[in-house]
Amino acid sequence: MAPAADRARCMNPDLERLHPYPFERLAALRAGVRPPRELDPIVLSVGEPRHPTPAFLAEAVIEHLHGLASYPATRGGAALREAIAAWLTRRFGLPPGTLDPERHVLPVNGTREALFALAQALVDRSRRPLVMMPNPFYQIYEGAALLAGAEPRYLPTTAETGWLPDLDAVPEGDWARCQLVYVCSPGNPTGRVAPPEWWARLLALAERHGFVVASDECYSEIYLDEARPPTGLLAAAHAAGREGFEGCLVLNSLSKRSNAPGLRSGLVAGDARLIAAFLRYRTYHGCAMPPPTQAASVAAWRDEAHVRENRARYRAAFEAVVPLLAEVLEDVRAPEGGFYLWPRTPVPDTEFARGLYASQNVTVLPGSFLSRPAGGADPGAGRVRIALVAPVEDCVEAARRIRDYVRGL
Amino acid sequence: MAPAADRARCMNPDLERLHPYPFERLAALRAGVRPPRELDPIVLSVGEPRHPTPAFLAEAVIEHLHGLASYPATRGGAALREAIAAWLTRRFGLPPGTLDPERHVLPVNGTREALFALAQALVDRSRRPLVMMPNPFYQIYEGAALLAGAEPRYLPTTAETGWLPDLDAVPEGDWARCQLVYVCSPGNPTGRVAPPEWWARLLALAERHGFVVASDECYSEIYLDEARPPTGLLAAAHAAGREGFEGCLVLNSLSKRSNAPGLRSGLVAGDARLIAAFLRYRTYHGCAMPPPTQAASVAAWRDEAHVRENRARYRAAFEAVVPLLAEVLEDVRAPEGGFYLWPRTPVPDTEFARGLYASQNVTVLPGSFLSRPAGGADPGAGRVRIALVAPVEDCVEAARRIRDYVRGL
Repeated sequence: MAPAADRARCMNPDLERLHPYPFERLAALRAGVRPPRELDPIVLSVGEPRHPTPAFLAEAVIEHLHGLASYPATRGGAALREAIAAWLTRRFGLPPGTLDPERHVLPVNGTREALFALAQALVDRSRRPLVMMPNPFYQIYEGAALLAGAEPRYLPTTAETGWLPDLDAVPEGDWARCQLVYVCSPGNPTGRVAPPEWWARLLALAERHGFVVASDECYSEIYLDEARPPTGLLAAAHAAGREGFEGCLVLNSLSKRSNAPGLRSGLVAGDARLIAAFLRYRTYHGCAMPPPTQAASVAAWRDEAHVRENRARYRAAFEAVVPLLAEVLEDVRAPEGGFYLWPRTPVPDTEFARGLYASQNVTVLPGSFLSRPAGGADPGAGRVRIALVAPVEDCVEAARRIRDYVRGL
Repeated sequence: MAPAADRARCMNPDLERLHPYPFERLAALRAGVRPPRELDPIVLSVGEPRHPTPAFLAEAVIEHLHGLASYPATRGGAALREAIAAWLTRRFGLPPGTLDPERHVLPVNGTREALFALAQALVDRSRRPLVMMPNPFYQIYEGAALLAGAEPRYLPTTAETGWLPDLDAVPEGDWARCQLVYVCSPGNPTGRVAPPEWWARLLALAERHGFVVASDECYSEIYLDEARPPTGLLAAAHAAGREGFEGCLVLNSLSKRSNAPGLRSGLVAGDARLIAAFLRYRTYHGCAMPPPTQAASVAAWRDEAHVRENRARYRAAFEAVVPLLAEVLEDVRAPEGGFYLWPRTPVPDTEFARGLYASQNVTVLPGSFLSRPAGGADPGAGRVRIALVAPVEDCVEAARRIRDYVRGL
């Protein structure tokens, strides 16, 4: 047995700063509750797409299994970087040639690892750094900030701010210490797409105070109006005259877009200087993408037909569910992007989620598990996140049960 | 354009501490050199296995491609953890049940990412930490130490120490600050397997000073004498009475064992408390293994026949090459483990490697690219690393050309 001294010394104290994961809190909330056996469980708490993965992705993996015999390069093959650059250029209306596959793009194994790693790579912990994020937020932003030695700052993101992170809530002194701002657009869980004027304001602040903007756009391809695809940070940076996307990084993924969360494939793109630093970090960090995954990713980024089909499935779910839930809950609105509803609950959100599970065997996520109390208010409290990821008939069944539950409150 | 202030502020100064990668230095060494066109290139500088990946691995991927539709859990499925625990138990002669798949084992996406991440997860940078490593060494150890905010310390690992890291070279005050020791056994590039008495000494130091021992055993399955498989840290910890592998972590991988470097699959195993902390880190770090990769890995860890065949291929290469090279170079010896030769060069190692490339189109790695000068000596200087990974006929052809080159010096 190692002496007690060990145990203390060889442990990074930053690990103690991490908060419990939302799904750990959900498991604790559900512990000991026995939902009615006669009702099949319907889980709408996890943002995991459940539509089928397109067959051509699997075929591309199969065709490239000979790639298991080679070490992949951290920066990925040229074909993948080109497919990513071409997709971003087309999708976000960038002038051709703006985004150089050699300098502005890197493949990553999903946005989670990249969101985390970029804070570790870029933050200078010797300068009392702050990292800003929306509130409520995807838990990785906070964990990345804490483990990078930064203090997280939570920007209220509520109905009062039109579901945009409240840039006015930040004291000037905090902006001066800010090194990184995470944005999520379309927002998880709010569904809000940051509009050009909000981006312009954030980029002006970034220019004044010298921080990096990292935009998590993993929900950008899930939207209900085919005529209105969400804009994103690359277009905003270009509009603001940042021709080299200075200080800007976007992250996106095939998990939601192509229903391939088990593929672990995503992208980071933007400022060539930040990309070069991140690549340097990543050669040690060691998350090169397996060659067959690269081949499947090339095929996926090049195709839009399957993405349109995917959106049609979500549209059907929202069209069926929203009217049912709107009968009993406030703020039930189809999102601008993403697959979440974010309604108000008539009782506290944890009580609502627990009661719904206990009586109807439907699992949703309490909003307060996604947020931190700040400035006297908890912006996630009093809402639940409902992920419309199940087959449409299950979504409808869940909506009926939620309706029954609320009517019985 | 962001102001100049940005550029300074938003960059982690630890990135500047990284040394150039050995292969960057090799590219610079070769720059401008034109090898003879009539000789096909033979590359023996990279430790990338080039034997065929067994077909059953690819088949397991294909059978589990439906898994692309699900998010994998960071800790991996039970089947994978059980296959890993069973393999380690069998392979290293541990008493059954010692290694609990629930508490002592995690899958990782190759040893590189795990070697890197464990330093980031475990090191307490507030205590002026030291991280020890052999010298010469796999460059990830040093990068991991630097980016974890630690100071690397290099343990001379030379013919004089029997190719074992020299534990006597460390002043007592350094041990007190040491938080992590990387070991590589079988050694890259030396091929030396750490024997029980060396492990016992290191573990006694670890107990006294309270540091973690991380043993990179990714070459453990490449050995030439079927009757003498290399031992490792788990067996040594058990022998030292550390029933829970306290303070010990081993890393291994399918890249070399199963010729599957493109699969990105490995393991970390040992101390349950360290594994729990590492898992907590990894939920944010975000490198869950894709479900089809998990299925292929289960199949690979369960099978030894393909590993024996693989060893036979390496044996053939060593048996053919060693006598040829021994005619012209000193210290040409088949290794106890791994696929490297580590001979002395009759001229400085960089000159040797450059001249060999220029005259024979054979690439080997200068030893000094794998080491740091320390205490007035550079333990990698005057040797080259030759990876016998090519098909045996190419290895033999390379050996003939090396012989010609040396004879012409």
